[in-house]
Amino acid sequence: MTTPQPWQIAGRFWIEGPDGTFLGHGRVKLLENIAEYGSISAAARAMKMSYKRAWKLVDSMNRHGQVPAVQLSTGGKGGGGATLTMAGQNAIDCYHTVHREFLTFMQEKTEKLTL
Amino acid sequence: MTTPQPWQIAGRFWIEGPDGTFLGHGRVKLLENIAEYGSISAAARAMKMSYKRAWKLVDSMNRHGQVPAVQLSTGGKGGGGATLTMAGQNAIDCYHTVHREFLTFMQEKTEKLTL
Repeated sequence: MTTPQPWQIAGRFWIEGPDGTFLGHGRVKLLENIAEYGSISAAARAMKMSYKRAWKLVDSMNRHGQVPAVQLSTGGKGGGGATLTMAGQNAIDCYHTVHREFLTFMQEKTEKLTL
Repeated sequence: MTTPQPWQIAGRFWIEGPDGTFLGHGRVKLLENIAEYGSISAAARAMKMSYKRAWKLVDSMNRHGQVPAVQLSTGGKGGGGATLTMAGQNAIDCYHTVHREFLTFMQEKTEKLTL
């Protein structure tokens, strides 16, 4: 009979590019919210993020990728709509794929811990 | 001919127990310094950590494990020597094993990124 070992590997990951962080948990959540709500301001509000910060993150992602992740429509910084591009959707999918693998990795290594 | 992709998965991990973090990068470095310098104060100084914080971390690790990681000898909080126990050395080894696997995981997944 084995007792469950009390240790658990925990961690986090993000995806970096030449200019620093490109995708992390918060950025992906923001992209998902933009897909759901259709604007940066509503997306930010839904995750209690300031509009200014959300706009900076979108700008960072758009400059970082080879193609923008978010397409901004007319209305200016405060008012226009925002939609995900195919690159933006792909970025979300890519992040979640790695995330699933990351969770699996941590679980497998947790089971092999010899503390 | 393929161009190297500019994305890199980065991350960190730590090992948690019932009472929170048990082992992370800083704690392992502290244990290694204790093995090298033979006292908590010298170990802390070598990594520019306050003695108070180092002592708290050692206390946390000693209470967390089934056996202490660090054996304190006489001389009191400020003066005595400190040596690693076998459990402490094992904790270091265990952490480094997971760390190597973690780096391999991130490299492998980086090569498969489809951003």
